[in-house]
Amino acid sequence: MPDSTATTLDPTAWTCPAPLRDQPRIVMGHGGGGTLSAELVQHVFAPAFGGEALAQLGDAAALSLGGVRLAFSTDSFVVRPLFFPGGSIGDLAVDGTVNDLAMSGAKAAYLSCGFILEEGVEVETVSRVAEALGAAARAAGVEVATGDTKVVEAGHGDGIFVNTAGIGLIPAGVDLRPQRVVPGDVVIVSGAIGAHGVAIMSVREGLEFGVEIVSDCAPLGGLVEAMLAVTPDLHVLRDPTRGGLAASLNEIAAAAGTGVVITEREVPVPPAVSNACAVLGLDPFYVANEGKLVAFVPRAHADAVLEAMRAHPLGAEARIIGEAVADHPGMVVARTGLGGTRVVDMPLGEQLPRIC
Amino acid sequence: MPDSTATTLDPTAWTCPAPLRDQPRIVMGHGGGGTLSAELVQHVFAPAFGGEALAQLGDAAALSLGGVRLAFSTDSFVVRPLFFPGGSIGDLAVDGTVNDLAMSGAKAAYLSCGFILEEGVEVETVSRVAEALGAAARAAGVEVATGDTKVVEAGHGDGIFVNTAGIGLIPAGVDLRPQRVVPGDVVIVSGAIGAHGVAIMSVREGLEFGVEIVSDCAPLGGLVEAMLAVTPDLHVLRDPTRGGLAASLNEIAAAAGTGVVITEREVPVPPAVSNACAVLGLDPFYVANEGKLVAFVPRAHADAVLEAMRAHPLGAEARIIGEAVADHPGMVVARTGLGGTRVVDMPLGEQLPRIC
Repeated sequence: MPDSTATTLDPTAWTCPAPLRDQPRIVMGHGGGGTLSAELVQHVFAPAFGGEALAQLGDAAALSLGGVRLAFSTDSFVVRPLFFPGGSIGDLAVDGTVNDLAMSGAKAAYLSCGFILEEGVEVETVSRVAEALGAAARAAGVEVATGDTKVVEAGHGDGIFVNTAGIGLIPAGVDLRPQRVVPGDVVIVSGAIGAHGVAIMSVREGLEFGVEIVSDCAPLGGLVEAMLAVTPDLHVLRDPTRGGLAASLNEIAAAAGTGVVITEREVPVPPAVSNACAVLGLDPFYVANEGKLVAFVPRAHADAVLEAMRAHPLGAEARIIGEAVADHPGMVVARTGLGGTRVVDMPLGEQLPRIC
Repeated sequence: MPDSTATTLDPTAWTCPAPLRDQPRIVMGHGGGGTLSAELVQHVFAPAFGGEALAQLGDAAALSLGGVRLAFSTDSFVVRPLFFPGGSIGDLAVDGTVNDLAMSGAKAAYLSCGFILEEGVEVETVSRVAEALGAAARAAGVEVATGDTKVVEAGHGDGIFVNTAGIGLIPAGVDLRPQRVVPGDVVIVSGAIGAHGVAIMSVREGLEFGVEIVSDCAPLGGLVEAMLAVTPDLHVLRDPTRGGLAASLNEIAAAAGTGVVITEREVPVPPAVSNACAVLGLDPFYVANEGKLVAFVPRAHADAVLEAMRAHPLGAEARIIGEAVADHPGMVVARTGLGGTRVVDMPLGEQLPRIC
């Protein structure tokens, strides 16, 4: 690691690892929430669909309908296995979409739920997923209002895929988007990172790390509500799912046109996750979370917001990890434990496929 | 065909063809929109999810949010092949959801769009689907506001699956649901039935019937708007997709607690569809449509509504095909060309899998 400092880094020296936009076929990384996913959206979906809301490219779209401000978001879930320590595809299907809505400040009100089942899957398994989904919805205070089921022939699907879409009201005065970030904003993470991806990986591969690593899967609506009660003037929230904290910070930096500097040792990583990542060759900054958020908050409100977060069970380990800076716009830099810095790149794809 | 009359039929003599709710594994019919689909919803999803909106079991949920009345609906699309005469999975993904919203009287405003791609599918194919979806959205006057993409390994999906969810405003004074149907209501179909399912089947199986049969895939929002301009007091609308006209009429009869009598020869079926169905052993009443609706309208408004429908390009061939009756509640009966009657059962599954 060269002993450079953040301000001497040259952003133009950073290039996309490979010109993959010319790739003729879909690869796993196109679903990974990194550069390949972004390219697919920018070069294929956005031009085809048009539309202003989609162009915002947030976790949820902020819309106006009948005079009210709505958040609207969707996610499909293809996680393997269907059940894992700390949750299931049913929990993810609720929390993933509810959290996307929460990141726009909205309290989720209603979910749609579409199942694509593979012929031959046990009805009992479908029931268990549905029950987990229903229980997660009740825990998140959201109602499953409408649904659909399709079946594909054996060998043309993979057990159970679930899609949810969600709608919720955005409170008056709340306007969360990366374009509002300014240098000096404080970066807060709501708790320890990396557990979800490692939990999935360990059960999938039959790995044991001495202690069971449990997914952090949880609905963040209540935590966001507590933060907005301090001030509606938060600048942006993201839940670092696919692509992890690194992808979320890079997306915000790119859209905000600011740099971001974080201090590595301030980012909480559970020792078990850290050890597992070392064994697996993963960087915890790139591992998916399903119950964490990262917030960019005006410096004047940072202490009060942090206090409110710590008073909430899902924010008890919240910490300030860095700040937005005027230097190196669009780039995320980490101060390492050795006093140096390293660039935290946007991931190309996802280290761990099908983790949500 | 016994020369019975509708009024001599004994509804209690009709039973579900098989006690399939005890089936331990998912079969194709669970996605067919018939009895098996209904059983899955009633015995698995509805108890697990709870919720009042879902219990309505309409094509779209009618919700209240922030003081406005919203319709919210979702469908997943797994049609094979992706492109067929008259449309594509992209067209279906828009029209299917837009039409579900229209059946609650709502004009679709925003769509979400979730893709599940199989590793190895050509980016060019994804682009063509996205372009078709975008064009269909513009034609239907709806904006794709938010999206998501997941990728599964080759052999664990089938090219491209699409889910859309949609939201729209329900106009004041409109309350469309089968419980409002009363004996004497007139049953109107907006045009000829059966084209979509037969178009898919013919291209999938490489069949030729002398003339190309083209899917009727179309957005019905404008037609519904024209009908509601005559009177907001329509009782119920359904778009007869999976399970065809037979499933829609049976669902309405069951929920309304009335009987339904239709006159077979009044139901428009294009000769090419009729011929193809004869060859394939299909009943056009059970074949899916993607651009038709069936309406139950108070008798006093029937002529005016029919006239308004015929003035719209998508309702030019609209016809009165029957009525709701007090006899044989929950049962649909067709008067045959020979002067007899036959029971039009709820289908068990779907004759043609993966037609949407």
